[in-house]
Amino acid sequence: MDVSEMFDRMPFNERLGIEVIDIGDGYAIGELELGVEHSSNPDRVIAHGGVAYALADTVAGAAVVAANMTVTPTIDMRIDYLAPATGGTLRAEAEIVRNGNSVATVEVTVTDDEKRTIAMARGTYKTSGVTGETAWRDDPTA
Amino acid sequence: MDVSEMFDRMPFNERLGIEVIDIGDGYAIGELELGVEHSSNPDRVIAHGGVAYALADTVAGAAVVAANMTVTPTIDMRIDYLAPATGGTLRAEAEIVRNGNSVATVEVTVTDDEKRTIAMARGTYKTSGVTGETAWRDDPTA
Amino acid sequence: MDVSEMFDRMPFNERLGIEVIDIGDGYAIGELELGVEHSSNPDRVIAHGGVAYALADTVAGAAVVAANMTVTPTIDMRIDYLAPATGGTLRAEAEIVRNGNSVATVEVTVTDDEKRTIAMARGTYKTSGVTGETAWRDDPTA
Amino acid sequence: MDVSEMFDRMPFNERLGIEVIDIGDGYAIGELELGVEHSSNPDRVIAHGGVAYALADTVAGAAVVAANMTVTPTIDMRIDYLAPATGGTLRAEAEIVRNGNSVATVEVTVTDDEKRTIAMARGTYKTSGVTGETAWRDDPTA
Repeated sequence: MDVSEMFDRMPFNERLGIEVIDIGDGYAIGELELGVEHSSNPDRVIAHGGVAYALADTVAGAAVVAANMTVTPTIDMRIDYLAPATGGTLRAEAEIVRNGNSVATVEVTVTDDEKRTIAMARGTYKTSGVTGETAWRDDPTA
Repeated sequence: MDVSEMFDRMPFNERLGIEVIDIGDGYAIGELELGVEHSSNPDRVIAHGGVAYALADTVAGAAVVAANMTVTPTIDMRIDYLAPATGGTLRAEAEIVRNGNSVATVEVTVTDDEKRTIAMARGTYKTSGVTGETAWRDDPTA
Repeated sequence: MDVSEMFDRMPFNERLGIEVIDIGDGYAIGELELGVEHSSNPDRVIAHGGVAYALADTVAGAAVVAANMTVTPTIDMRIDYLAPATGGTLRAEAEIVRNGNSVATVEVTVTDDEKRTIAMARGTYKTSGVTGETAWRDDPTA
Repeated sequence: MDVSEMFDRMPFNERLGIEVIDIGDGYAIGELELGVEHSSNPDRVIAHGGVAYALADTVAGAAVVAANMTVTPTIDMRIDYLAPATGGTLRAEAEIVRNGNSVATVEVTVTDDEKRTIAMARGTYKTSGVTGETAWRDDPTA
């Protein structure tokens, strides 16, 4: 099973319809076809903020996993919403801007079918010290 | 329909099982019962980062809507993950720390059944200038 | 007095040696020559995190002021440090990625003489509702 | 030399007038007396956004250094401005909310003489893998 498949099999990603469609050296790309189930409005599709975020976090994590071949929990992420997502397929491209021994910084851009930028996100991911059952097990304060 | 019910009827919140259980003066509280569908792991429950985020964004938005009685799109949000969410009910409490004419700043804490802090989030929400069909319609650049 | 000069005359920018060297449609560029006074180390120059931040916040604000011709206070900003700044001239380029009626989102990249990326920052700036003596005067909760 | 003194001797902190006045188990407190040199306005004191940020980053770093007794570079920080700082003494209190093996998460609140909250900041700091001359030397990509 490759990294892309690993992410597609994550139950939450299946639940939301997130698919990682490409992973390469320092980047990953994912997509999600918007449906009414992603909406914050019962009458039409205006994606809930959590949709673009979940997609962004997923592709960022996929890029870091592929680059470091270890589990890489998210430490923090900021997302900025630039336009509403109202239908079609959301596409997120993640690029690692710094891949260090203990953390990586990743930039993500989320666009729609018309190439509008829906959101931009930047996050910090752990790249070392992850052992055992959970991502944070090595943390004495967790 | 009150604000709490409005948020519970959002399709994405229904999809994830997010419920807004309390809204008051400058705050909102929501819950989500974790299941395997929220997991980033097919074998056990370790919530995907998007779960705590979606819950946090929802209660923050609910607090701002209740305080301003207008649609309040998220402008940006940062989330910091402090411990893994591995089961039970996630609870998020949002508090408005500044409610201005054009934007509000909201702080959210996400905890689990054992009162561990799972995540902290802080976001900026629009409180004015939202007209018509979409949150961003007033934006000439959108 | 143009916008660039206005920013250069700000006492804090003079104190730090920040100069806005170019402002155009949706962008601004600033520079700061690193000296021992910017260091977090008494023995050599390793710029304090506040240096890149102050430079980033300044050029982002300059870009938004120039685009909207009004005072534009910072609402929030995130900065990610990618490499240490150890000498020479820091250069920050700000680009407005969304200029809305009430807020603008701005992206800033800080580089050194060797074109290394020292830091990346993204912030939200107010673009309306600013009246009177202070930036926040229109805010009933301030 | 204790940690507090170490931070006070940093040239940039001297330049800005930042003093770390208390450090304890998981926290640090610092102060800065506002003068016209901190202003973004030549005619009166309205502190530049970089002032509260530099103070926040300093006390957060001091708290992490004291808790881990190693150099702890800032990985990222977000700051939210809640009210203008127009005079008197700014006071920042940093609290470590999670101190892990590789990173720490720190929350900072900046207040003025009237106990108004001027800004809130949250940042991620490195707590391991820092060796040699610069904070990032262990990073193969830096």
